[in-house]
Amino acid sequence: MPTLKNDLILRTLLGQPTERTPVWMMRQAGRYLPEYRVLRERYGFFERCQTPELACEITIQPVDIVGVDAAILFSDILVVPQAMGLEVQLIESKGPVLPDPIKTASDLQRVRVPEVQETLGYVFDAIKLIKKELNGRVPLIGFAGAPWTLLCYMVQGKGSKTFDEAKAFCYTQPELAHRLLQMITDTTIEYLKGQADAGADLVQIFDSWGGLLGPADFENLSLRYIRQIVAALKDRVPTIIFAKGAWYSLKSMAATGAHGLGIDWCIDPAMARQLAGDKVTLQGNFDPAKLLSPIPVIQQEVKQMLSAFGHGRYIANLGHGILPNVPVDHARAFVDTVKEFSVHKS
Amino acid sequence: MPTLKNDLILRTLLGQPTERTPVWMMRQAGRYLPEYRVLRERYGFFERCQTPELACEITIQPVDIVGVDAAILFSDILVVPQAMGLEVQLIESKGPVLPDPIKTASDLQRVRVPEVQETLGYVFDAIKLIKKELNGRVPLIGFAGAPWTLLCYMVQGKGSKTFDEAKAFCYTQPELAHRLLQMITDTTIEYLKGQADAGADLVQIFDSWGGLLGPADFENLSLRYIRQIVAALKDRVPTIIFAKGAWYSLKSMAATGAHGLGIDWCIDPAMARQLAGDKVTLQGNFDPAKLLSPIPVIQQEVKQMLSAFGHGRYIANLGHGILPNVPVDHARAFVDTVKEFSVHKS
Repeated sequence: MPTLKNDLILRTLLGQPTERTPVWMMRQAGRYLPEYRVLRERYGFFERCQTPELACEITIQPVDIVGVDAAILFSDILVVPQAMGLEVQLIESKGPVLPDPIKTASDLQRVRVPEVQETLGYVFDAIKLIKKELNGRVPLIGFAGAPWTLLCYMVQGKGSKTFDEAKAFCYTQPELAHRLLQMITDTTIEYLKGQADAGADLVQIFDSWGGLLGPADFENLSLRYIRQIVAALKDRVPTIIFAKGAWYSLKSMAATGAHGLGIDWCIDPAMARQLAGDKVTLQGNFDPAKLLSPIPVIQQEVKQMLSAFGHGRYIANLGHGILPNVPVDHARAFVDTVKEFSVHKS
Repeated sequence: MPTLKNDLILRTLLGQPTERTPVWMMRQAGRYLPEYRVLRERYGFFERCQTPELACEITIQPVDIVGVDAAILFSDILVVPQAMGLEVQLIESKGPVLPDPIKTASDLQRVRVPEVQETLGYVFDAIKLIKKELNGRVPLIGFAGAPWTLLCYMVQGKGSKTFDEAKAFCYTQPELAHRLLQMITDTTIEYLKGQADAGADLVQIFDSWGGLLGPADFENLSLRYIRQIVAALKDRVPTIIFAKGAWYSLKSMAATGAHGLGIDWCIDPAMARQLAGDKVTLQGNFDPAKLLSPIPVIQQEVKQMLSAFGHGRYIANLGHGILPNVPVDHARAFVDTVKEFSVHKS
């Protein structure tokens, strides 16, 4: 594989010195890009995920168009439940639907820990192609959903504000819930190892619904499984945990040995650093809706964010995915301001 | 007015000793009660709000059925935007729709600070009737939405996960946003004073979407207006601020002089107390989805919560509204466990 010409994000995750702060954006390969929308018109969601050439093109678009310091694989966290045997429908602008969710012990019999090369080989093929096409320009981020977040969809069967059916499943049938969480965990470990073997330079675990759980439940239903994943991966590639809203667990998440922790915009940088300690890289935390502000406001707020996080052990990012209605030049202003303003003077 | 036979919640808000911890549940007058669903079948939402006899019957139902220590007025936070001149449609199981939301300066001309006796007199009539019917059994809680949360609906025009259009309105047209927030604040102050005059024993300000804002934006767009409301009310009746998700502002919220602060389940009691200080009453914070657990689990978790909060300066409640699918005997188990387990031994 070609040597990386830009390894800012990797050095930052390892706590090594860098010339400036690296920057990327969650959901950077997505709907705010006109070039993405063209492909979205022509191909279904899973067609885009499962065709390495399409996944490759979409993954690289934001590197070319907005100049981010890392590419992130174009895919979806729900490919894992799909590989485990559940039907997943991704209807654009309606969100995911799993028509036969898990509710009982007999439902669980429909779920398996699959052979990942067989069921998710298309992801590994896409990664190989992306790495070839990137040709060392920037690192490639692989990813998976956290087991708790995947359980939410596998049990609730669709998006939800509260995921109360998923929670009720865990509270009323804890033994079943833990069995399912362990199966997701085992699959995810093999899946992320496969991504690393195919060439992913680092991986991020997305726990989008972690913040729906209180501190004790987060430890019990989410972090104990994330911990297994981080332990299995951390000697192969750096790992980042992004558990949206789970600020109360920053200390415990740092103790997993993950290299980086994503944070949302609802915690100030000093508090996040105090809770997480100084042995982990923080990533975030610009309010995605702020990218709808006028460009001078974006520039000013990005500078404030950079000053608040300080140099080193910090990756600039949004606090959640970029919104589809953000103008491309606003996204570029975000990236450019980080690049210009964060140059580390020695 | 008859003397209150149960003033536990008022004494707790004033920091006075009590025999046990008071308990009520957000949305306790609502869809989980079969008696409520009967009325919901027969009358439209605004008909229920605007007919004092119906509002009274619904308000008192949970006092009779689950034995809570306070009644909370049956109404909706969106009666205020309605009184200010916006059309509000509340379609059951679809959420609120405001068909002509505020987007521009000229839209703002459609909005007024109304005479509350004229536009919201039906609420005051309901309060007077409820107080008469309660006959001193328990205190009556009045309420209003926080200005930021009302702006969210007035600008976005409907519910949203991110309220990004409301945020973009504030970020791109801050002068307009602050003008609207001040108009909502002025209306809310008169509205809550009217509730107190009609007989509400305390009032709660619901900032359901406060937690969508980062700490600086919460101060700028939400708390500065809540502060005005608390200041205008606090010598008349005790006030409780419930800003869901805005844990980072507990210290600033305590400094408003509010008597109580509601917290959700995503912060542990010790941390909440540390942030809020010891001069304010905390209210919360049971995960509403946990009421779907088996009753012995509910009892055990409630006991843990009570132990964690300790005696005094604490009102037991959920961390958000009760879910419609909670069995009534589970709600009753919640209330009964608080009553039985929190008896203060001297």
